[in-house]
Amino acid sequence: MADARRVLVVGGSGYAGALAARLIDRHPAFALSGVTSRSDAGRTLNELYPHHRVDAVLRELDIDRDGGVDAAIVAYPHGAAAPVVAALRARGARVVDLSADFRLRDRDIYERWYGTHGAPELFGDAVYGLPEVYGEQVAAADLVANPGCYPTATLLGLAPLARSGTVTDVVVDAKSGVSGAGRAPSQKTHFVAIDENVVPYGVGAHRHMPEIDQELAALGSPVTTTFAAHLMPLDQGELVSCYVTTSEPWSQERVDDAYGRWAQNRPFVEVVASPPGVRDVRDSNVCAICARADARTGKVLVFAAIDNLWKGAASQAVQNLNLMFGLPETAGIEP
Amino acid sequence: MADARRVLVVGGSGYAGALAARLIDRHPAFALSGVTSRSDAGRTLNELYPHHRVDAVLRELDIDRDGGVDAAIVAYPHGAAAPVVAALRARGARVVDLSADFRLRDRDIYERWYGTHGAPELFGDAVYGLPEVYGEQVAAADLVANPGCYPTATLLGLAPLARSGTVTDVVVDAKSGVSGAGRAPSQKTHFVAIDENVVPYGVGAHRHMPEIDQELAALGSPVTTTFAAHLMPLDQGELVSCYVTTSEPWSQERVDDAYGRWAQNRPFVEVVASPPGVRDVRDSNVCAICARADARTGKVLVFAAIDNLWKGAASQAVQNLNLMFGLPETAGIEP
Amino acid sequence: MADARRVLVVGGSGYAGALAARLIDRHPAFALSGVTSRSDAGRTLNELYPHHRVDAVLRELDIDRDGGVDAAIVAYPHGAAAPVVAALRARGARVVDLSADFRLRDRDIYERWYGTHGAPELFGDAVYGLPEVYGEQVAAADLVANPGCYPTATLLGLAPLARSGTVTDVVVDAKSGVSGAGRAPSQKTHFVAIDENVVPYGVGAHRHMPEIDQELAALGSPVTTTFAAHLMPLDQGELVSCYVTTSEPWSQERVDDAYGRWAQNRPFVEVVASPPGVRDVRDSNVCAICARADARTGKVLVFAAIDNLWKGAASQAVQNLNLMFGLPETAGIEP
Amino acid sequence: MADARRVLVVGGSGYAGALAARLIDRHPAFALSGVTSRSDAGRTLNELYPHHRVDAVLRELDIDRDGGVDAAIVAYPHGAAAPVVAALRARGARVVDLSADFRLRDRDIYERWYGTHGAPELFGDAVYGLPEVYGEQVAAADLVANPGCYPTATLLGLAPLARSGTVTDVVVDAKSGVSGAGRAPSQKTHFVAIDENVVPYGVGAHRHMPEIDQELAALGSPVTTTFAAHLMPLDQGELVSCYVTTSEPWSQERVDDAYGRWAQNRPFVEVVASPPGVRDVRDSNVCAICARADARTGKVLVFAAIDNLWKGAASQAVQNLNLMFGLPETAGIEP
Repeated sequence: MADARRVLVVGGSGYAGALAARLIDRHPAFALSGVTSRSDAGRTLNELYPHHRVDAVLRELDIDRDGGVDAAIVAYPHGAAAPVVAALRARGARVVDLSADFRLRDRDIYERWYGTHGAPELFGDAVYGLPEVYGEQVAAADLVANPGCYPTATLLGLAPLARSGTVTDVVVDAKSGVSGAGRAPSQKTHFVAIDENVVPYGVGAHRHMPEIDQELAALGSPVTTTFAAHLMPLDQGELVSCYVTTSEPWSQERVDDAYGRWAQNRPFVEVVASPPGVRDVRDSNVCAICARADARTGKVLVFAAIDNLWKGAASQAVQNLNLMFGLPETAGIEP
Repeated sequence: MADARRVLVVGGSGYAGALAARLIDRHPAFALSGVTSRSDAGRTLNELYPHHRVDAVLRELDIDRDGGVDAAIVAYPHGAAAPVVAALRARGARVVDLSADFRLRDRDIYERWYGTHGAPELFGDAVYGLPEVYGEQVAAADLVANPGCYPTATLLGLAPLARSGTVTDVVVDAKSGVSGAGRAPSQKTHFVAIDENVVPYGVGAHRHMPEIDQELAALGSPVTTTFAAHLMPLDQGELVSCYVTTSEPWSQERVDDAYGRWAQNRPFVEVVASPPGVRDVRDSNVCAICARADARTGKVLVFAAIDNLWKGAASQAVQNLNLMFGLPETAGIEP
Repeated sequence: MADARRVLVVGGSGYAGALAARLIDRHPAFALSGVTSRSDAGRTLNELYPHHRVDAVLRELDIDRDGGVDAAIVAYPHGAAAPVVAALRARGARVVDLSADFRLRDRDIYERWYGTHGAPELFGDAVYGLPEVYGEQVAAADLVANPGCYPTATLLGLAPLARSGTVTDVVVDAKSGVSGAGRAPSQKTHFVAIDENVVPYGVGAHRHMPEIDQELAALGSPVTTTFAAHLMPLDQGELVSCYVTTSEPWSQERVDDAYGRWAQNRPFVEVVASPPGVRDVRDSNVCAICARADARTGKVLVFAAIDNLWKGAASQAVQNLNLMFGLPETAGIEP
Repeated sequence: MADARRVLVVGGSGYAGALAARLIDRHPAFALSGVTSRSDAGRTLNELYPHHRVDAVLRELDIDRDGGVDAAIVAYPHGAAAPVVAALRARGARVVDLSADFRLRDRDIYERWYGTHGAPELFGDAVYGLPEVYGEQVAAADLVANPGCYPTATLLGLAPLARSGTVTDVVVDAKSGVSGAGRAPSQKTHFVAIDENVVPYGVGAHRHMPEIDQELAALGSPVTTTFAAHLMPLDQGELVSCYVTTSEPWSQERVDDAYGRWAQNRPFVEVVASPPGVRDVRDSNVCAICARADARTGKVLVFAAIDNLWKGAASQAVQNLNLMFGLPETAGIEP
């Protein structure tokens, strides 16, 4: 692949970064130029993630040596990401940032939830990288903020309703596998704490809430979402169960029609007849969605399943890169 | 225990019946008079459930031989339970019925959800066996309808709110371990179908909904509950996440006060500061509850965890029997 | 792919057949001509296996309509497979058979373990499809007997020792995920029976034993293997822990040398420094092997991990098909 | 319980210590005098282990304040345990030590595997606390070394063979749930590393090997055991699969006779007809054993299952304490 675009993965020792490295490494039009790590420099990716089978030595990021690439996927925590993104942009690399640093358009809201921002001058440049909604803007962007995993599933599930402007109240009950909590060992992610357990967390205070509210408003339905996340005894997979109150009744026919149109020309949106299980989308960039008008209560119930590491992080980053470089949206991540 | 009350378990090859047999077998004031089974007569309980260590041979129910007991726990499916309950009552045995046959007080609603009733003459005699709400009536009853597992957790979690009469809308997102689906093998309960999966089921059509609505109304808040259940990759355990809209705002102080009073003198109600995991109540009759006033949205969020086979079925049956025989509520099922 | 070879999958409703259909469907040089099923004809593969995303309707096998293909993968149980294989061979299709029907070369041994054989005339024609050992014969074969999952892992792990002729005793402690037990629901594969459990099975009587003995002898070390299998709470994955007594001492150096040579030019054999976990090979055709000379006891300990549905069944079938059609061994199943 | 014996638990923040605290707290003849912790002093046991429901504040050990008890269970790591045991013994407390510090009778062997010993003067005083073998000595002892979990299962499983003096070779393939790896978070115990995985560890170098060899020799069969442990995706439970070569053939009749006698008067030894699953003994002090003469190979195969935290640690400590104080062996830990 002499003419493959060179892509750097920054922060490859975490789950999302490592998977991004694998997807780039196998991609028909990208070449993996390197993988950096702050915590595990000197070790190989194969040592940390044998099943990815990516032959790369993790190294400290040296922006002068590593920055001259066509693109980078940055998989740092929020706060740490912004300055690295700025440095890469300064060298001309297009960037998909997996952190929260460039997702929120309102700096005040950002700083309320996350603290001081590390590269405020770029704050307005980023495109929110949900390709099913912002595909054209992504194609023209140099900096894309990859959405959070919960917002990805929630927004793909609620977009047809939100765009109608009729949504007045949303409850999102989110359920995630443990890889969503990251690779750092802790009491919370110890096998014994997770096994045979289900635990709510981030109740009423999860950082993905302002992101969901921002985008539901942008779609046409300004609401304050009620949100609770739950950690479940599985590895990869995320389900959001959404309970939506609308200002006018939605029949099942109207629901089916709206969701049918939503799936058209969106290769990773699958509208299914029965509520999906997260296994149905494991190791894929697909979001499976089932929407039901509940005649008893008048609410619309929407269930959306993704793989939190794929569509919720790494493969969505590749989908964004594909668009940024004029490639087929599905290149390297075919459903 | 010459003077122990003799208790028969009808339907001991299922999970709940087998556990009931174990709890009766170890109980300080009850003696296990026998365990019946339609499907596995002739086999031993130890064969089916080695870890229960109950030395009993399962036998076909012979009402003439088996019916002369002080009490029976009936663990048959709905529909099959009612005639057996009637036959046992006719012989004077006090009965706790684990099925849905005597939970609903409105026969029309029963028949809409379950079909023709098998013992309508008893329909009005049964007490709804949620001891934390109906303790006095249970103590005086000869026939107790043990609540469904989801109603148990939901009602214990919402009672303080519902009794205030201020509840106007309830969303219940319920999550259950697989033992709740019963012992019969099926594609849905195959290990490979459950492992690494989370699947919604019973969306907008679960039979526990009318039961929840009936009891929330009885507590003071008539609402039509929105309900969805989810099957999770664990054995025992159930969490209900409840999103409650109220007619007037509830501060965290008011919430804490109401739930603090709710836990008083109810030995199996534990009000906890952080949302509970289902492991916290495994193999116990405890319901752990956390309630949060969500200042952002004005809703109250309530998380209630039980063991679906214990408080959601077998140990709650024992709790009811304790009350029916004037024993300490906690006998044999101490937290 | 106008010139793609047309491949039929017979028995596509089971785990291995369905995966074979997916691998053929995505293969660069094969086209999926159809998928048959005895139990689920009329349903779609997507209904049974949404995550495979293969757009095919399962149909009853009609040998006249379906038999005119370049090749078939037969995924029937032993006994049922032989006549279908014979019918397909009679129409000229090359066949890879996943059952045990053509693995054993001694008909007496076959009939002792499996009963009467359904196509004895083909008994001698089949090649044992372990490509790492019989690659040349497979390339020339029209009928290949895909090895059992346990023999695959065991033989790949022990070949370097067995070929030396120094093996005098072998204990194989095998551990398998539940998909190895097949898709049919039963008490044994119920989630609740498997979860938090490990259960030995097939102790001293597993049908894979004569297959292992046959091939160890063919490699140069005739022994009677001691074998016990264990069912573990996971979906896909198989580990064999082999405890080998030899007629002369093997130093770690000799072990390393023999295994290093074994991995050469075998793209799916990975010799690793630490005992592998089954996750390392999940969803791949790789067998990861670690061999240790145990100075304390003089034994050699070998740990070999495969994915029982991939290298233990479906992807090994594709590997065999690749060789049978002169394609690169790794086509469509790259590590 | 005015006259209950006062028992201190030293090291109650780990899994085994916490369970010991719960068992003592519920025991009919013991009273929990306190629970100490080096890492979590000031926190409550309920905070760390809500499901144990033990109302105790963890505190730093103050030997002057805490040492005046009738007995102590010490749940420190090896090396750290010995000096604390010595201090408690100096104050007259009887001690059951869960560490390895007093299990080995040969100081050289101890120091080869564990390093310098912290209280060599007590080295010869301890009794090896496998009550099924050393019950009389335990009853007379002031210091009992609770066996390791693997030795417990292995020795209970092999004792009838070992006592015959006919054992010439033993392979132990051990499989453990994750609680055996302790509560400290690490990459190895992260949910994502364990889930859907099985990983060998301690191959040829596990510290439980010299302990097994010491006791097999004491029983009458001096051998050098081949041992490999495997970490499995479950919480509590341990299975040892033992492959035994004997100097003379054992028929199944002889096996059955020897194991039948072994189970007599040993309330926690259960000899079962089919290889046991670890679920069968979960949360109990029982060891379930199945022994099979393998006619094909002449070996005897023995499968023994325990709960690693119960019979493998905490409940066996209580069994030892029961004997040390002349109580019924099963007090507080009835099967």
